[in-house]
Amino acid sequence: MALGLAAVALVAVAGGAAEKPALMPWPSSIEVGQGELAVTPAFRVGVTGRGGAIVEKAAKRLEARLARQTGLALPDPVAPAAKPTLEVRCAGPGKPLPHLGMDESYALTVAPEGATLEAAEPWGVLRGMETFLQLVGPGSSSGFRVPAVSIRDQPRFPWRGLMLDSGRHFLSLDTIHRTLDGMAAVKLNTLHWHLTEDQGFRVESRRYPELHRLGSDGLFYTQAEIRDVIAYAAERGVRVYPEFDMPGHATSWFVSHPELATAPGPYRIERRWGVFDPTMDPTKEEVYRLLDGFLGEMAALFPDPFLHIGGDENEGKAWDASERVQAFKRRSGLATNHDLQAYFNRRLSKIVTGHGKQMMGWDEILHPDLPKDTVIHSWRGQESLGAAAKQGFRGVLSNGYYIDLVWPAGRHYATDPWDGGVDQLPEAERARILGGEATMWSEYVSDETIDSRIWPRAAAIAERFWSPREVKDVDDMYARLDGVSRWLEWQGLDHRAGYARMLQRLAGLRYHELRMLTDVVEPLENYQRGGTGRYTQQTPLNRLVDAARPESDAARAFSRQVDALLADPARRAGRETVRARLGEWAGLSVRLRPLLESRAALQEAVPLAAEASALAAAGLEALGFLEEGVPAPETWWSSRAPLLEREKRPATALEVAYRPAVRRLMEVAAGR
Amino acid sequence: MALGLAAVALVAVAGGAAEKPALMPWPSSIEVGQGELAVTPAFRVGVTGRGGAIVEKAAKRLEARLARQTGLALPDPVAPAAKPTLEVRCAGPGKPLPHLGMDESYALTVAPEGATLEAAEPWGVLRGMETFLQLVGPGSSSGFRVPAVSIRDQPRFPWRGLMLDSGRHFLSLDTIHRTLDGMAAVKLNTLHWHLTEDQGFRVESRRYPELHRLGSDGLFYTQAEIRDVIAYAAERGVRVYPEFDMPGHATSWFVSHPELATAPGPYRIERRWGVFDPTMDPTKEEVYRLLDGFLGEMAALFPDPFLHIGGDENEGKAWDASERVQAFKRRSGLATNHDLQAYFNRRLSKIVTGHGKQMMGWDEILHPDLPKDTVIHSWRGQESLGAAAKQGFRGVLSNGYYIDLVWPAGRHYATDPWDGGVDQLPEAERARILGGEATMWSEYVSDETIDSRIWPRAAAIAERFWSPREVKDVDDMYARLDGVSRWLEWQGLDHRAGYARMLQRLAGLRYHELRMLTDVVEPLENYQRGGTGRYTQQTPLNRLVDAARPESDAARAFSRQVDALLADPARRAGRETVRARLGEWAGLSVRLRPLLESRAALQEAVPLAAEASALAAAGLEALGFLEEGVPAPETWWSSRAPLLEREKRPATALEVAYRPAVRRLMEVAAGR
Repeated sequence: MALGLAAVALVAVAGGAAEKPALMPWPSSIEVGQGELAVTPAFRVGVTGRGGAIVEKAAKRLEARLARQTGLALPDPVAPAAKPTLEVRCAGPGKPLPHLGMDESYALTVAPEGATLEAAEPWGVLRGMETFLQLVGPGSSSGFRVPAVSIRDQPRFPWRGLMLDSGRHFLSLDTIHRTLDGMAAVKLNTLHWHLTEDQGFRVESRRYPELHRLGSDGLFYTQAEIRDVIAYAAERGVRVYPEFDMPGHATSWFVSHPELATAPGPYRIERRWGVFDPTMDPTKEEVYRLLDGFLGEMAALFPDPFLHIGGDENEGKAWDASERVQAFKRRSGLATNHDLQAYFNRRLSKIVTGHGKQMMGWDEILHPDLPKDTVIHSWRGQESLGAAAKQGFRGVLSNGYYIDLVWPAGRHYATDPWDGGVDQLPEAERARILGGEATMWSEYVSDETIDSRIWPRAAAIAERFWSPREVKDVDDMYARLDGVSRWLEWQGLDHRAGYARMLQRLAGLRYHELRMLTDVVEPLENYQRGGTGRYTQQTPLNRLVDAARPESDAARAFSRQVDALLADPARRAGRETVRARLGEWAGLSVRLRPLLESRAALQEAVPLAAEASALAAAGLEALGFLEEGVPAPETWWSSRAPLLEREKRPATALEVAYRPAVRRLMEVAAGR
Repeated sequence: MALGLAAVALVAVAGGAAEKPALMPWPSSIEVGQGELAVTPAFRVGVTGRGGAIVEKAAKRLEARLARQTGLALPDPVAPAAKPTLEVRCAGPGKPLPHLGMDESYALTVAPEGATLEAAEPWGVLRGMETFLQLVGPGSSSGFRVPAVSIRDQPRFPWRGLMLDSGRHFLSLDTIHRTLDGMAAVKLNTLHWHLTEDQGFRVESRRYPELHRLGSDGLFYTQAEIRDVIAYAAERGVRVYPEFDMPGHATSWFVSHPELATAPGPYRIERRWGVFDPTMDPTKEEVYRLLDGFLGEMAALFPDPFLHIGGDENEGKAWDASERVQAFKRRSGLATNHDLQAYFNRRLSKIVTGHGKQMMGWDEILHPDLPKDTVIHSWRGQESLGAAAKQGFRGVLSNGYYIDLVWPAGRHYATDPWDGGVDQLPEAERARILGGEATMWSEYVSDETIDSRIWPRAAAIAERFWSPREVKDVDDMYARLDGVSRWLEWQGLDHRAGYARMLQRLAGLRYHELRMLTDVVEPLENYQRGGTGRYTQQTPLNRLVDAARPESDAARAFSRQVDALLADPARRAGRETVRARLGEWAGLSVRLRPLLESRAALQEAVPLAAEASALAAAGLEALGFLEEGVPAPETWWSSRAPLLEREKRPATALEVAYRPAVRRLMEVAAGR
């Protein structure tokens, strides 16, 4: 079986001039054959074997999705093919629910006469169907086609997750369902559902109904809704497991149950973002009694064997301020707050285990006393997971996959769970690294913007978790990502259409010039946005920064053009392309000014547009010096260099994405 | 109360430089005041009076829709306004269901301190809420705002409909719901649901289940689904009434019940488009027995008092060919097939009336013997309705509103139900013209394309039915239509996003040049598309013609620029604009050729692109002659004039939309 890299080369040869299929995750083995399978209105899926209801339903969905993707009216009731176009063979039904370690492998063979998808269990069928759909495209000899291929595929890691934070901003059921569709489309198999936070308690508790009644502003999921989500996810081969964050990040619990907190209260739902002091009191038995009752209820609601108890970011201030907690520590011989939290976690672990679940928590919970089936969820990094693995704990990596940090896809893609020395571990220890999770913390996302924050970048992360480690060429990933992004929109996601719609809301009838600007800016990375204004749960997320995409494709393309130019300055064609783009951008500020000044919501973009244009103008000047072949004078450099520093705390929270490329141009022009 | 035209002028004056609000339908009276109402996260709707559940639910929906339109997180649980931002007062609940003649009037007052919406019944509240939402826009002094206005509004006609044809192509429930949202958004109040056709029997009959089982390919609505649709529509103030087309257009009935047909059969579901021979046998008592049973079942299912029996396009061939029918005609003294159909209709009318409904049918059913509560639905025109009104029949106009003919919005808009002498009728007779219906026959639409075929053009027709007759300035309508089109997309319609998505499917990564071409072409009008290829129910509707919009905004704008130029050739600025557009289009063919030739689905567009570019090049030449001030030589004209004739039966079924404008340029240049 050819591994990733070899397969990529193979495609390039066998595929000739044809576009490389926009598959993501890239399969572990792919061979491209001769010819193609035509996709016509007579297309039909045939199911054989004993896959059961999950396979049958998936086959129906595949026909409907193919109809949507191609415009063909499927299934055609009049002329169904005598023999199925895609034959699905599933050996057995497997367990009724998706589970850690399920068999997701499949083999897909496409030939001009027909396609065959084989798998041992329904999970493999589901993954293979996504591959099949990604392969369907407009053809050069018929309306739609699938290239002849032979694919054998299985995941590298069994735990490939996305975390959704419904606590900080409530996410509608529509959003949850849409996201599950997207996850399944790129073979993610685990939804980590962050359900309680300082800012909201989002799950119905029948045993303690004040928890959600008083802690959620009425924005919570009923148990029936959660069961629906779990069933919807299961049909798509996605596990769902909950997180109830404690002892910190728990203010919303204390609104109705102040007795759980270390300080007396009263408490209100937190509206700001950050790390706050309110913390559960680990010294009170009634805390464990309620947690036992509540987690028992949740353990029955969520069938997955894992239950996440958070455990992060407890700074211990509430404990330090409490006489009772201090006395308890002394009495119990607990020297530090970390020891006290370990005590809390051991108590919690007994409760969780008592309800038949395996406990999971963030790095902070790691302690030798915990049972070895505890799973460490790492926001700190691979070293942390490696250390845990050495102690016998399993781990899941999220460091490097925080998609709320608004990094480019390529940067997440470059992070591997085996980095940081993990690949040096003995096989038995390394195998304890189960995989990873992209985390979508929701301070700065709403139902309207979340698609553009998750997609398409999460597809690149999904490839990191699924494909062989050797599949890591960033340019190749980006070349496929664009096609996958469009395909994801056909699956019902809104990250592309929403962009135009939001810009039209901001700009009105003529939004094309605003779009030109927004195409080349990016939201500030990491959590710098918080420093550009006062944000709370109530702050509308309807500004230019919310419309802007995490990553500027135009700036990335421009950067490549600049690199090509600097590598070979004689190439006149490349120079003209660079000049044309800079010329457009240099004029933006003047062209946009009337619009920006006439709309309140756009006034903050006036300095941004001015900065973008000044930077482009300086780039044009640099190009002129390069063309003349004389180094730019020092006075030019000293007057233009300040443009290379971004304005501090820009109100827009946006950055001009072509700044680094212009910097390179200017530095070469000035001989620096 | 100021009428339409005066109000338009008033807005222009009072509004100053501000954009005229993109209201559609334009209200019967509107006065613009000073200032604006800020829409902030504290926005709240307050309901007083006795409007009941419909008003309460609409208020909740309004908050959710406003959230979607503005990006504000509404309702804000933290800081609700002490006093509602929009106060809704509804005097009484009215009847439980929307009905012909319901009170839809409302008064809406918006001031900087708050807004008030008053209505006698829930229907007026629903209409006024749409007006309010259309008024919300980005402001110049705050994030979002509603301009201060005072509106008093009521409809001109009580019957403002849209017909959906689920017979020829089945339409998903999603599509039906989405369309109802759009209808309510532009104050249409009647869904005419065409449920049976030669090509499909789309409603579940429990009494005669073979009808839908054998006549629908499994694509039918269950009675529970239909009840849901009716309830969904009722909450939006939209009546739903069904059509069961007979005695023609009934092939799908005969698949299971050949005994209903005049000729013996057997029958299969018709797959082609057109007018077909199979016709019910009006001489058999068992036909009336089944119709009595079936229509009784449908009369119980649909609460609306109207029931449409079609009655159109029976060419009588089956009757002419039947010995039994001929004998029956002789025996009964029925001289013509029209007399025989009138006999059939009288029998039907008794059945329909017996089930408590009023019968409706197309022009052909008009006959003095029918009861006067019969409603004539006219595809023929206003004269036909006028004649019916003189005989005491009520009528509804669809001639002029066939949106499947792919006319520009302005042409539908120019059609008035009172044209053709209707306005000369005595008031009592004229009042029998209840209104009109846009008809969306579905030969060439699918779930994917139907939004772009209905919207935004149906909004212009909705204005014709709602607004005062004096509101008829086409340029003014178009100026508002663009904003309304965007607003409709915020309400969940897909006519704009779908365009880009379909072009991307056809063109792949780089679709912008294909979009430039598609932006300036239009599907052939009327039913010419049928002449360009072989179309059946199974033909995929995924080609360039399906992506193309019914009306080219770019060509319309260009046409105005050409007119301005020809009116004042000295205006150099205008000339440069025209030249720039023609220059872009002239280059399209060369730039697009590699793409068009590489994709099977686009090969048919090669001659279209060539035609578009040749035409633009000729326009550039004409511009040159105009600029030089010399008439173009006769040889030029004779060599270029053939370009002005469209290629016969173009495979694309598309026409270059700027051809008439280029023709004017060329004619003036050649001094013709």
